[in-house]
Amino acid sequence: MDIRGETALRNTGSFTSPKSLAVIGASNTPGKIGYALVMNLVESGYKGMIYPINPKEKEILGIPCFPSLADVPEDIETAIFCIPARKALDTAVECGKKGVKTLVVITAGFKEIGRAGAELEKEFMSICRQYGMRVLGPNVVGFIDTHTPINATFLKGFPPKGEIAFISQSGAILASILDWSISAGGIGYSKIYSLGNKADLSEVDFIAEAVDDPNTKVILCYIEDVTHGPEFLKVVAEATRKKPVIILKSGTSQSGALAASSHTGALAGSDLAYNTAFKRCGVLRVSSMSELFDLAISFVNQPVPRGDRVAIVTNSGGPGIIATDRVEAHGLQMARFSKETIEELRSYLPAEAGIYNPVDVLGDARADRFKFALGKVLQDESVDSVAVLLCPVAVTEPLETARVLIDYNRDFPDKTIVAAYMGGQALAEGTKLLSNSGIPCFPMPETAIAAIAGMSEYRRLIEQADTKQEAAYFKPDQKTVKAVFYDAHRDRRLALLGSEAAEVAEAYGIHAIPIILSQSPDEAAAIADEIGYPVVLKVASPKILHKTDVGGVVIDLKTPDDVRRAYVDIIENVHTYLPKVIPHGIEVQKMVPKGIELIAGMTRDVQFGPLIGFGLGGIFVNLIKDVSFRLAHGLTSSEIAEMISETKAYSLMKGFRGDKPVNIGAVSDIIYRLASLAVDFPEITEIDINPVFAYEHGAAALDVKITLS
Amino acid sequence: MDIRGETALRNTGSFTSPKSLAVIGASNTPGKIGYALVMNLVESGYKGMIYPINPKEKEILGIPCFPSLADVPEDIETAIFCIPARKALDTAVECGKKGVKTLVVITAGFKEIGRAGAELEKEFMSICRQYGMRVLGPNVVGFIDTHTPINATFLKGFPPKGEIAFISQSGAILASILDWSISAGGIGYSKIYSLGNKADLSEVDFIAEAVDDPNTKVILCYIEDVTHGPEFLKVVAEATRKKPVIILKSGTSQSGALAASSHTGALAGSDLAYNTAFKRCGVLRVSSMSELFDLAISFVNQPVPRGDRVAIVTNSGGPGIIATDRVEAHGLQMARFSKETIEELRSYLPAEAGIYNPVDVLGDARADRFKFALGKVLQDESVDSVAVLLCPVAVTEPLETARVLIDYNRDFPDKTIVAAYMGGQALAEGTKLLSNSGIPCFPMPETAIAAIAGMSEYRRLIEQADTKQEAAYFKPDQKTVKAVFYDAHRDRRLALLGSEAAEVAEAYGIHAIPIILSQSPDEAAAIADEIGYPVVLKVASPKILHKTDVGGVVIDLKTPDDVRRAYVDIIENVHTYLPKVIPHGIEVQKMVPKGIELIAGMTRDVQFGPLIGFGLGGIFVNLIKDVSFRLAHGLTSSEIAEMISETKAYSLMKGFRGDKPVNIGAVSDIIYRLASLAVDFPEITEIDINPVFAYEHGAAALDVKITLS
Repeated sequence: MDIRGETALRNTGSFTSPKSLAVIGASNTPGKIGYALVMNLVESGYKGMIYPINPKEKEILGIPCFPSLADVPEDIETAIFCIPARKALDTAVECGKKGVKTLVVITAGFKEIGRAGAELEKEFMSICRQYGMRVLGPNVVGFIDTHTPINATFLKGFPPKGEIAFISQSGAILASILDWSISAGGIGYSKIYSLGNKADLSEVDFIAEAVDDPNTKVILCYIEDVTHGPEFLKVVAEATRKKPVIILKSGTSQSGALAASSHTGALAGSDLAYNTAFKRCGVLRVSSMSELFDLAISFVNQPVPRGDRVAIVTNSGGPGIIATDRVEAHGLQMARFSKETIEELRSYLPAEAGIYNPVDVLGDARADRFKFALGKVLQDESVDSVAVLLCPVAVTEPLETARVLIDYNRDFPDKTIVAAYMGGQALAEGTKLLSNSGIPCFPMPETAIAAIAGMSEYRRLIEQADTKQEAAYFKPDQKTVKAVFYDAHRDRRLALLGSEAAEVAEAYGIHAIPIILSQSPDEAAAIADEIGYPVVLKVASPKILHKTDVGGVVIDLKTPDDVRRAYVDIIENVHTYLPKVIPHGIEVQKMVPKGIELIAGMTRDVQFGPLIGFGLGGIFVNLIKDVSFRLAHGLTSSEIAEMISETKAYSLMKGFRGDKPVNIGAVSDIIYRLASLAVDFPEITEIDINPVFAYEHGAAALDVKITLS
Repeated sequence: MDIRGETALRNTGSFTSPKSLAVIGASNTPGKIGYALVMNLVESGYKGMIYPINPKEKEILGIPCFPSLADVPEDIETAIFCIPARKALDTAVECGKKGVKTLVVITAGFKEIGRAGAELEKEFMSICRQYGMRVLGPNVVGFIDTHTPINATFLKGFPPKGEIAFISQSGAILASILDWSISAGGIGYSKIYSLGNKADLSEVDFIAEAVDDPNTKVILCYIEDVTHGPEFLKVVAEATRKKPVIILKSGTSQSGALAASSHTGALAGSDLAYNTAFKRCGVLRVSSMSELFDLAISFVNQPVPRGDRVAIVTNSGGPGIIATDRVEAHGLQMARFSKETIEELRSYLPAEAGIYNPVDVLGDARADRFKFALGKVLQDESVDSVAVLLCPVAVTEPLETARVLIDYNRDFPDKTIVAAYMGGQALAEGTKLLSNSGIPCFPMPETAIAAIAGMSEYRRLIEQADTKQEAAYFKPDQKTVKAVFYDAHRDRRLALLGSEAAEVAEAYGIHAIPIILSQSPDEAAAIADEIGYPVVLKVASPKILHKTDVGGVVIDLKTPDDVRRAYVDIIENVHTYLPKVIPHGIEVQKMVPKGIELIAGMTRDVQFGPLIGFGLGGIFVNLIKDVSFRLAHGLTSSEIAEMISETKAYSLMKGFRGDKPVNIGAVSDIIYRLASLAVDFPEITEIDINPVFAYEHGAAALDVKITLS
């Protein structure tokens, strides 16, 4: 965010339809990038002005060539760099002086090659920023807009016109996709962007542009990272309400290098932040290239299913069962037909046919039988989407059956229809007809169901976004928090003492059982006398994170003598285990009745800020790993309800095996206040409240750990 | 198993190469099954005798036709039924009289159409058994052997010769696969079988046949159920040691109809039995048709990787990262190259290239650079398999690069090589060359890695099978068990009392804390006096499975008076919650120190017999669901070690956060003895030992539940 002015932010203007273009480093030599670029611009039918720049040439592909930018008599909107990296800085200055608005830097040799390149990139961007120029790249293959039309890449081929915008951080993947789409036919694009090093413009800018683009229906991204977390969250959350955004984010195996000291941090990991952020903005995350395109084709051609109820019509039992398995595996439902539908199916179909769901029209079904069954199924109010499965058995009529589907697709515009034509040559014509007529046709039943599942997931994400409620406002006591942090800062302590952490929690309205620090056995006994028995004693030291493990906790102390003895025991235990640690003293806390043990915590992601975790607590928290996460920023009460219900802890909270349910509102409140604390104080790096005891009538924080940066 | 004689079992002889064949219901009318069959037999080049049978025809396709079987002058080995179901019984008798050995019953209208059909099938099989005839079907599309050659199906087309045996319970899927393989080219088959209703011959028979077939290298099955569990286990476990058996078993969503009363039963479910059984026999289970064939192609063409260490060579970063993610997701390892390899890569490749793993030869790599890098990587001892990823960027040479791979494939016969050529037209020739030259070539990086993962999984399964150790022999006291069961049987009780169950466990050497039944407060106190305090009291009633929930358990009783009071409390509690239940009395058990709470249990699957479950115990067992399963029959100590290590309980057992480890041997012993008990007494339907307390020096069963049938 450092490299761009506030005003230019997110405004890429008519990026893919510049009025005039300079190709700096244009060439007359086939095989050179500067040649391929001019050729592609011409062949794509680009209607703006093209100015090839090369001091050694008079004209390139019949277009007059200029020795330098300064020699071009007209304004230049966009300049494409096909020059070596060493010329980049001077050329950028020339562009700036000429008043160029956007640079497309094909040139490689920047950040991607190491430190020297990174330095160059920094200098380069500093010049661009000075002149207010926006930059795509460096290290990109360019961009395409089939509607402008313009092909500003050096790749071979121009894809068919279509409604998919594709944004790729990898140029090679873009090349693959392009080659594949042109060969496969039927898959068209509106815009294609190569992001390269993302020194300035990133996926955020182009998602924003694609959302406003009337020619785009679905937005696909391949990315390896997000570099502007807060903007990404804002822009993409708005985008997904209008159009599906499907992202393949790779690099899931790069486990976070950060060594986390809290339970919550250890459970989170770097990829989880992306999952959480994508979920927040309604992004569909896929894990393979095939999913990316199967979903894109489905969204472009079919309505998003109104609900999760899937019907299957098949001419064979086996694929019907496979599809039913997948419906259940994806968390969708098999539609339950109305009595009328079942009766009508029974009356017409052969006795051996399957008349419930899946509907098995049998191997000897011709198109007419598909027509009858499918018509009845589509009319049924309980059906949101239909998968038609066809195997090439004896008398199958794949082409005629395709025509039946196409008619119904027109007659039932609000029902989602996909097909699986399972076979090769015998079904090729039918498959092609379906694909060209707006019915996604897959080779396998599992893929057809996956497409319905992905679309349904999008609907669910958007519905959740629509029903999000803001949590209740409350006024925290920030002064107390600041005072505590001041003390810690002054003492150069990063981990707060238990008593301090409890105070901070209380300041944010999280009911924490008070913890009082004592410096001697007698003081501990006196405190216990005052707060009442039984009490628990815990060693106070920021250096000991797991106190139980070093004999630093003694519970259920009922008399002053018990307390005195325990004080001494703890000091001795700690000395045995950790001879170098000098405790700050011993904390005294009143014992409270055992509730359901939960954990609520916070860890911080470098891109997306604080993540709030919630789940089953206690000492086994790392073993059971029952923790769900959400972004702290803008956390709504609906999201809190969701995150609670995702955990196994929820089963306990609702009342497990006859127990009374606990006060879920009180737990939600703790989660919300924890999020507020994390957002208000960026200097907090990690929080663990473990356990939170949840009771029938409330909840309390027993042990709060807070670490500062 | 009821329908076949012991001697004929598993011996299908030369099923796919009969010396002579009758087609009963042969026809001269194109479109009829009886026509298609004769046509296919002739066109496939079948060299045995073909006898069309039809009273109305003189000859069919130039082959003399006979009015009936009896009119055929020679012996007939196999008869193919293309007649209506109503003629099946009489025709079977004719076949029997003629001495036909095997029947291929294309005819439908049997079990698959409901009760009447099932009756017909039973009668039909009874005739066949009487004459000692083996039956494929009914309701099949037939079989194919490309090496015999013979096409005894009514499907269109004959697949290319190859080394894949395909066994399908669904005829339609078979038709799809056939059509697809013929169109796609490059995928050949040795044998293809349609199983239909499996009235006699099943996947077990043909897996056995395919294993012995020198033309078959890999065995694929699509099945919906296994109907002969014990035989399946025996035959398939032997088969997988020789050849990979890959199964797509559908019907995973059909949750077991059996209402389980035990924890173990509730956690198991019907599909788990299949998973457990497949694991036992080394079957690779896949969940989609695409996986089935991707793996088949890989096994046919490439050696099974010697280990899990994968190298990736790519001309683009993005696909490299995607592949790396998948390597980790599949539990494989990224190979760590030797110093020499890294140095050599560094010395030759451009500075920006990735020289660790993945090796990124960069977008401007021609075939020579792939050749250099791939050569170094393949030479490295730390590399077991290589995935080569290629995107069609500027100067890529897909065809030349393919030739490089093919050369290396010959030079490094013990290393597994797969490719992902990501694109369309630009890569088509290269893709085809690779596929035809024994290098599986996929369109996406994720599929290439999945292929390596599947092959590695096979290696792991086989290695495990090879290292299986028998558990130690022990001599149980069966007499005591029988005596207990006799009492329960006489009282018509299906659930044993706690005291009885503990006795049964002890008889099998499972140390159970004794439980003594008392009938009055005073008797309970007297027992407690004898066994020593503290004690726990539990209500004794086979009708109460979760005693804690009804106030039926009071713990930590330290005096005779405590015991008397608790006795009365429990009786009152039970009366309040379950007024109709009259307890058998109250059980008294000595309290023992709390150990790690585990569960060991048994549930029974109708096909595969008893399943043993083990995991985290306690009252949250159903919430945490940390239970792993194995088949009880033939359970080895290696399998027990595996099942323990799969659970989260294992982390606790090894010593969690500084605790001392528990005696894992003692726990293993309980699991083994439990399995023996389940195998020895089929009348036990379910066992739950929950909790098992595991200690540093042993383990004890606290609460044993046993249910009889």
